Amino acid sequence: MSLEAQPLVRPLDQLRIVLCQTSHPGNIGAAARAMKTMGIHQLYLVKPEAFPHEHATAMATGAADLLQTAIVCDSLEQALNGCALAIGLSARKRQLSHELLPAREAAQRACSIAAQGQQVALVFGTEMSGLSNDELDHCQLLAMIPTNPAFSSLNLAAAVQVLCYELRMSAGLSTVTPAVANPLATSDELEGFYTHLEQTLIKIGFFDPNDPKKLRQRIRRIYARAQLEKEEVNILRGILKLTQNPRPPEGL
Amino acid sequence: MSLEAQPLVRPLDQLRIVLCQTSHPGNIGAAARAMKTMGIHQLYLVKPEAFPHEHATAMATGAADLLQTAIVCDSLEQALNGCALAIGLSARKRQLSHELLPAREAAQRACSIAAQGQQVALVFGTEMSGLSNDELDHCQLLAMIPTNPAFSSLNLAAAVQVLCYELRMSAGLSTVTPAVANPLATSDELEGFYTHLEQTLIKIGFFDPNDPKKLRQRIRRIYARAQLEKEEVNILRGILKLTQNPRPPEGL
Repeated sequence: MSLEAQPLVRPLDQLRIVLCQTSHPGNIGAAARAMKTMGIHQLYLVKPEAFPHEHATAMATGAADLLQTAIVCDSLEQALNGCALAIGLSARKRQLSHELLPAREAAQRACSIAAQGQQVALVFGTEMSGLSNDELDHCQLLAMIPTNPAFSSLNLAAAVQVLCYELRMSAGLSTVTPAVANPLATSDELEGFYTHLEQTLIKIGFFDPNDPKKLRQRIRRIYARAQLEKEEVNILRGILKLTQNPRPPEGL
Repeated sequence: MSLEAQPLVRPLDQLRIVLCQTSHPGNIGAAARAMKTMGIHQLYLVKPEAFPHEHATAMATGAADLLQTAIVCDSLEQALNGCALAIGLSARKRQLSHELLPAREAAQRACSIAAQGQQVALVFGTEMSGLSNDELDHCQLLAMIPTNPAFSSLNLAAAVQVLCYELRMSAGLSTVTPAVANPLATSDELEGFYTHLEQTLIKIGFFDPNDPKKLRQRIRRIYARAQLEKEEVNILRGILKLTQNPRPPEGL
């Protein structure tokens, strides 16, 4: 099969977030917002206590479209229909032996399967007690967010945010849009600046003939670390010029 | 020095979360909860619109102790007192050049400095518009959470959750190899340098009363990017002193 013939699989489009028996509709809205910020769109709600609800809409802000397309289910089984992998989020140690992965590794596992075009579900339990043992039986894997052992209680939407963030990072979309960069000074422009700086420091009496070379190096390294832009070199040389020949304040 | 004699530095104890001019007290509470789940305890509030407040307490749930010990400040400068590094969280592209890192790399940088026993601040702006340019001027580095370009608006507490999660993940790694480094200048030492610099630039005629503020910002950012060490600040202030009162060359 040629490369052109292959359909483009976007891993994040294969992921679904499943919220089981959520008590507070505000958390559903906040979870939708968290999902959308990370580019994940499929929301499944298993027996939500109140949905649709004005609190859900209010907390979703610009992610209300995810609430519109959310699929409300009567059972977790129904929400997982078609999924190749269901990962349950767990806040506590479980007796029964599911494979347990930190969130980062779980997200990598999810994305590697999603990248093959198969659906993967991330399953979250209730605010009070997490996933029931019955619900866990429908998952193949458990994920855990590393937390402070003395206080491990993440808000539901906060847990969704961390998982969705890790999913986005794993999907290869971890780059940030770089700020519009100004052109950096070239090596010869920098050398011109260093020479100018050294002349100035001699003139004001900072460097004397017995000056240890080390001080020169230290000063160069400050500016080297700053990675000066062309325009910044011009600003700094403007300062050096005036250091050598100060301009008297106006009106004097 | 023997290994036993070294005090144990716990990087998370050196980190402070600074929330600037937060509008909704509920977000302060939710941020406190997010912090505590990740084992980060120092909360600084710069001019919060309403604090203490019942909504903050309600949203903090089991993290109300962080609200009790939160330090309310009149200025960002005050909140950063004693910090060797201030990292501003940014959601938008900025024109002027701060170094910009994805959250994960920024957290690693923060923890590597915290592991040396120096304080590091993570600075968050308002819900509506993030950090102002004035606030950014107090930061040496910008962090950005990779997001869906079509909807990048994380809730404030959700952003705090992701950053604190990355800090906790990094803290586990950075305890292994503390790098030996020279101590960085603290935020108040930097402010002292900037004030000295500004006085000097006025004296030599570089700044005039009609000076656009932008030039000041650009100069600050050069030194912010360099992440000055304590000793380097002393060297640069030595230069400023001689710029104001040059020492005539010997023998003249």
